[in-house]
Amino acid sequence: MKYNILLLIGIFLLSSCHQNSENAASSSEHKSTKHSVEKVEYAMVIHGGAGTILKKNMTEEMEQSYVATLNEALDTGASVLSKGGSALDAVTEVIKLMEDSPLFNAGKGSVFTNAGTNEMDASIMMGIDQNAGAIGGVTNVKNPITAARKVLENSEHVLLTGQGAELFAEQQGCEMVDPSYFSTERRLKSLERAKAKENMGFHEETEESKHFKYGTVGCVALDKAGNIVAGTSTGGMTNKRYNRVGDSPIIGAGTYADNATCGISSTGHGEYFIRYAVAYDIAARMEYKGISIEEAAKEVVMEKLVKKGGSGGVVGLDSNGNITMTFNTPGMYRGYIKPGERQVKIYKE
Amino acid sequence: MKYNILLLIGIFLLSSCHQNSENAASSSEHKSTKHSVEKVEYAMVIHGGAGTILKKNMTEEMEQSYVATLNEALDTGASVLSKGGSALDAVTEVIKLMEDSPLFNAGKGSVFTNAGTNEMDASIMMGIDQNAGAIGGVTNVKNPITAARKVLENSEHVLLTGQGAELFAEQQGCEMVDPSYFSTERRLKSLERAKAKENMGFHEETEESKHFKYGTVGCVALDKAGNIVAGTSTGGMTNKRYNRVGDSPIIGAGTYADNATCGISSTGHGEYFIRYAVAYDIAARMEYKGISIEEAAKEVVMEKLVKKGGSGGVVGLDSNGNITMTFNTPGMYRGYIKPGERQVKIYKE
Repeated sequence: MKYNILLLIGIFLLSSCHQNSENAASSSEHKSTKHSVEKVEYAMVIHGGAGTILKKNMTEEMEQSYVATLNEALDTGASVLSKGGSALDAVTEVIKLMEDSPLFNAGKGSVFTNAGTNEMDASIMMGIDQNAGAIGGVTNVKNPITAARKVLENSEHVLLTGQGAELFAEQQGCEMVDPSYFSTERRLKSLERAKAKENMGFHEETEESKHFKYGTVGCVALDKAGNIVAGTSTGGMTNKRYNRVGDSPIIGAGTYADNATCGISSTGHGEYFIRYAVAYDIAARMEYKGISIEEAAKEVVMEKLVKKGGSGGVVGLDSNGNITMTFNTPGMYRGYIKPGERQVKIYKE
Repeated sequence: MKYNILLLIGIFLLSSCHQNSENAASSSEHKSTKHSVEKVEYAMVIHGGAGTILKKNMTEEMEQSYVATLNEALDTGASVLSKGGSALDAVTEVIKLMEDSPLFNAGKGSVFTNAGTNEMDASIMMGIDQNAGAIGGVTNVKNPITAARKVLENSEHVLLTGQGAELFAEQQGCEMVDPSYFSTERRLKSLERAKAKENMGFHEETEESKHFKYGTVGCVALDKAGNIVAGTSTGGMTNKRYNRVGDSPIIGAGTYADNATCGISSTGHGEYFIRYAVAYDIAARMEYKGISIEEAAKEVVMEKLVKKGGSGGVVGLDSNGNITMTFNTPGMYRGYIKPGERQVKIYKE
């Protein structure tokens, strides 16, 4: 409806090419962790967004910053979990740390809307009882994940939006900031470039903008008590309009957790993740088809989403601590930690 | 977390009692339509909300109004579908008609928020390609379903909220009205009663408030071309706060459509429908477990939701036009139509 024939051909060619390279990437990714049928003591997996993340576009310094922050996030989570802390605390602390970093499209590093504001979404869900909290379109909550957690803990609702969500967060004692806190030079430039492209009749598609267009942070943890918690936080899409809400605050799309199956946090082109209920679909395939988290994530991200044209990825873990980090884009900031085992990666390998 | 022991015991007793009576209701409901393995020419199913809808609380006149409007909705849809019109048009026209009626909690008849406003949500989804549009928290769009359809047709996004959604709807030529258009005496009284109860330390739980607390309208149609479309529209919860968004605009929770499986529109306690991805879960069970729409709806609504405490129901149909109207509450305004066959019901029978 919205594309002309040339664009369609272009997308087709691009996606065929993607499919081949991505399937190869997926396989190598799959070999990196061994499926276990015994529960590890604890486990945690994180992402900092998926996209056109290529080594050739990254300075040594930037790469080191990302790796350092991802490692710091893993240490923060492991420190909570190894002492017997809850997955809920681990996910909250880890996402707060990533929100406070300007490197990721969430919290401090959130991208700008078309109107020059920063509107953030976040969600968090407990695997034990499917209790969940989410907020959409907040502009002045320093750590959106803390507001989502307050919704989970102290509201009869699941999803609050806009000024109502901000009022709730304030009443619940979340740290509030002036919206200018979220204004960073780097993201402002992204917006300017996106708008310039748009004015020339193109949609924004620079390497840099693709890199962060759909950025997100997410974390899934399994604690010693066997509880899985998943959380996701984002600044959304660069140049977004009309108070668009993506998949990050949508339970079933951006975030899902069920102790019986898995916890999932998504990152990517949110509209596709909503339309295919990506996070829930992985849990559903595990439950109804009896397949592993790795197989389920592969079916959804590398087959279904690739076929439909939805770019992005997921991180997740099951009740034994088996990890998945599956993505159909050139890169995804990611890492996981278990007792005696850790990994941090950016590009596909 | 939020309930005391007494309340828990009460809920447990109530829900045990519900389970028995509801399972009985469900069985009789199931007998009313025969499972077909051949496609009917067209089919359509609607609901006007589920809740504590009891004959003893209904005047003869009110009952007749509901039955007449449900029949009018079926006629409107059948008129589109029988002439070879699209399921998309049928669903839009039918939901518009129900939004224009003050009888249902959607459009004109929307309930009030705690702040004394009317904030509406709607969504619509195509089974052929999972394209979808949704809007949350609009206050001045006469027919929220038309705004959701414009998002589906003319936006790269799936979900727009608040003022952004209103601006988009206006730019797209949707009929805009002064918010006072949605102010009706009946719903204002509901709000007053809910607030009075709340001030006395109770949450609102009068028969009348339970009747409409979670009201919604929905429609799923199958057209001659074999396309399934599902749509849902609501005024949300009486006395809702903080720009709460329920399941109606959440693809996968309130609405789902896939030509390969089914179309579903939900109504009920939205938070539960979000947490269990109810609409998508029915489609997923059909696909992965190979069961019928009726069995899948029963597993989700009468087993999973009843066990978890989530009251409400769904209407839906599969690619052959097999209908489900499954609910775990005392009543649901509902009806369906196929060539040579129609039904309108309110209470469980």
